[in-house]
Amino acid sequence: MSGEIDPEAAARHKAKMAVRKRVQDAEVAEKTIEKGLLIVHTGPGKGKSTAAFGLALRMLGRGRDVAVVQFIKGAWDTGEQHALTQAFGDRVAWHAMGEGFTWETQDLVRDKAAANRAWETAKALMAEPRFGLVILDEINIALRYDYLDLAEVVAALAARRGDLHVVATGRNAKPDLVAAADLVTEMTAVKHHFAAGVKAQPGIEF
Amino acid sequence: MSGEIDPEAAARHKAKMAVRKRVQDAEVAEKTIEKGLLIVHTGPGKGKSTAAFGLALRMLGRGRDVAVVQFIKGAWDTGEQHALTQAFGDRVAWHAMGEGFTWETQDLVRDKAAANRAWETAKALMAEPRFGLVILDEINIALRYDYLDLAEVVAALAARRGDLHVVATGRNAKPDLVAAADLVTEMTAVKHHFAAGVKAQPGIEF
Repeated sequence: MSGEIDPEAAARHKAKMAVRKRVQDAEVAEKTIEKGLLIVHTGPGKGKSTAAFGLALRMLGRGRDVAVVQFIKGAWDTGEQHALTQAFGDRVAWHAMGEGFTWETQDLVRDKAAANRAWETAKALMAEPRFGLVILDEINIALRYDYLDLAEVVAALAARRGDLHVVATGRNAKPDLVAAADLVTEMTAVKHHFAAGVKAQPGIEF
Repeated sequence: MSGEIDPEAAARHKAKMAVRKRVQDAEVAEKTIEKGLLIVHTGPGKGKSTAAFGLALRMLGRGRDVAVVQFIKGAWDTGEQHALTQAFGDRVAWHAMGEGFTWETQDLVRDKAAANRAWETAKALMAEPRFGLVILDEINIALRYDYLDLAEVVAALAARRGDLHVVATGRNAKPDLVAAADLVTEMTAVKHHFAAGVKAQPGIEF
């Protein structure tokens, strides 16, 4: 336990927080727009895809369905896919359409074809009104290697229905995508356990 | 669709990726340690708590139970709480033990007492072997305002059982906590929709 609080400190705290509440309330009152957001999770740190799956949970908890298209990960089993599809059934549409990491396939033609199939699926899902959120997992990787046409992707995202939230994840988000987005978070790796020799573990990395 | 790929470019890609695979495989082989991680999600950007809830999903998908202690958020309903507790029943222990934002309560004594009750609950949950992951949501806020004793928190986290993963979220993580952690991600706000007048929306902010 921390020590006791003297009454004067408590009174100063109360006065300061009363001011802060007025500022906070005024800021909240200014924000009136409701819209589907284009969200980008990028940067070298961990948390880009997991934050997208956390949003999926939040959206499901609010009663709207969620679609996930994975542009790099293939049909191997992950904890998040297992948990979401088992728990929420057909409220979650999950399409793992990658062929694996580029250094696993070593086949540019195949990678590019897979990415474009995933993109066609993503467009079809974005058109289905039941989805409140569509996650384009690792699409930034497919864009970075020019597997997809950036201008077409940005145009299709801009033309989506107004209430649809979309999250695009992956390192090295293209500047045009960042410019088009409403919310961009960069995950920065301050410290990473891989550097200390810790391996990928179930429940944490997959 | 992007344009055609010429055979020479495909061959160069294959050779480059073969090299990359050797490097990648060697790096993976070097990582042999398995341990429960102390993970910190900090920084001013969005995604700190959602990435923790994404990890919860991953851990649940791997068959281990998850506990959440919220140090600031109180008993109001959130999408993530609703989704996780509805879908996974008693595999998820959820304790929203805050009293709300400091500018709402305006009561230092009450905030401090609530934070310390939450910490006692967190310690009890960390001792239960069924949990693979314990999320200490917004504990960084409670530490920043000295509601909790930092040295005691760091010591208790260091003394936890070896296979337990813990995530501590919130802005302004204390340097001692960062020093003790295995994995620290800073969420940086590159662009935020609140600045453009967009309000907090269900499924995205709560």
